Amino acid sequence: MKNYKITVQYDGTRYNGWQRQGNTKNTIQEKFENVLSIMCDSQVDIFASGRTDAGVHALCQVANFKCTTDMTDGEILDYLNNYLPEDIRVLTLEEAPERFHSRLKAKSKTYEYDIAYTKPDVFSRKYVWHAPVRPDVDKMRQAAKWLEGTHDFRGFSSLGKTKKSTVRTINSIEITDENGVICIVINGNGFLHNAVRIIAGTLYEIGIGKLNEDVIYVIFETQIRENAGATLPAKGLKLVEVEY
Amino acid sequence: MKNYKITVQYDGTRYNGWQRQGNTKNTIQEKFENVLSIMCDSQVDIFASGRTDAGVHALCQVANFKCTTDMTDGEILDYLNNYLPEDIRVLTLEEAPERFHSRLKAKSKTYEYDIAYTKPDVFSRKYVWHAPVRPDVDKMRQAAKWLEGTHDFRGFSSLGKTKKSTVRTINSIEITDENGVICIVINGNGFLHNAVRIIAGTLYEIGIGKLNEDVIYVIFETQIRENAGATLPAKGLKLVEVEY
Repeated sequence: MKNYKITVQYDGTRYNGWQRQGNTKNTIQEKFENVLSIMCDSQVDIFASGRTDAGVHALCQVANFKCTTDMTDGEILDYLNNYLPEDIRVLTLEEAPERFHSRLKAKSKTYEYDIAYTKPDVFSRKYVWHAPVRPDVDKMRQAAKWLEGTHDFRGFSSLGKTKKSTVRTINSIEITDENGVICIVINGNGFLHNAVRIIAGTLYEIGIGKLNEDVIYVIFETQIRENAGATLPAKGLKLVEVEY
Repeated sequence: MKNYKITVQYDGTRYNGWQRQGNTKNTIQEKFENVLSIMCDSQVDIFASGRTDAGVHALCQVANFKCTTDMTDGEILDYLNNYLPEDIRVLTLEEAPERFHSRLKAKSKTYEYDIAYTKPDVFSRKYVWHAPVRPDVDKMRQAAKWLEGTHDFRGFSSLGKTKKSTVRTINSIEITDENGVICIVINGNGFLHNAVRIIAGTLYEIGIGKLNEDVIYVIFETQIRENAGATLPAKGLKLVEVEY
């Protein structure tokens, strides 16, 4: 039995996220497992570096699965792209060491949140969030600096009560502003549920003056979700890369 | 009664083109006329600079309509964008002289055809054509030079027999090759049915060596459609601009 590592791109618009959970239908994991199980003529499980929520996209998700087949790597790649829906594409496929696990071995991840503030653009309507007001990007950048580093991010998450650690490290947040789109790129060693969308929403609300810059400290100190900005819509979020 | 000029962007994927024709349902014109007729409480006709075919997109189509209303220009713009589907957006609206007609007054148009030749990209899958082979762009550029100028383009069209003139002028063809996408931008005083898609298909087939560069002369001389390349898929085509 071989262990295959794949990189995957998907348009999350019409899916209930990556992860098959209970009775949740129409997940990306389910689409993969259906195709793989037919290909291998036995039940195949696939593991991604992390779940992406309903409506979230991936430029380059990483996943792995184990199966026994006579097909070459190129043949498997073609088979998957032939039978998967056109909004899910396998970019690369390679054999990985037996112990490789896409989630457990991941060192860090890069997410991107895109905020458009100019005229409507029909071609990006499913991939960016259209903000009602143009924010001050310098203010956003300044506040973003205070998020970098190792902190307890519980106040920036949709988690209920949990005993698990909510301490994470954000390595960098870079914010660009080009062609009417503000692009927030966040790299960190892990993200709590909805964290990137809440961080983006908090930075946006700081940028339009609805929240003060020192709110970041207040949230770290109080760990109260309500002190942070709104959870921005899923469609603006993309998993960009997973680093091992 | 005022004459309004609008610029419109649309994702043509799920429409049967711009123009309402006979029993053809689900055209962009129909969507506009439905909304405008309710807004004005009387039948309103809208005229575009030209029909775009089923599946063809527009970055900036121009149209005009006449109606009587107490609403301000800003209110009409907001009304249209509120009630039109999200894949059709009105970018600008202004009052135009009574005699302005978006089709009759148009001096030239710019179209773009996009050909991708690298890995699949789910986010552009509805907006570019994925070519099986990477063409030689220099060959395409050289052949494109021979298309510029005033010629009888009948051989580059899907027209049946017609007594109307098929002579048109192509002012320029520019071809860029960036990030795995070849972008053919054509400006001309008018285009016959399917002309841009057939020109793009002919240039592509010259680029991959399936057709000889001198085929352009052969088509001009013989005016036989079958000598040209394939009509490339609608989804790669965009109306970029209309000049007056």
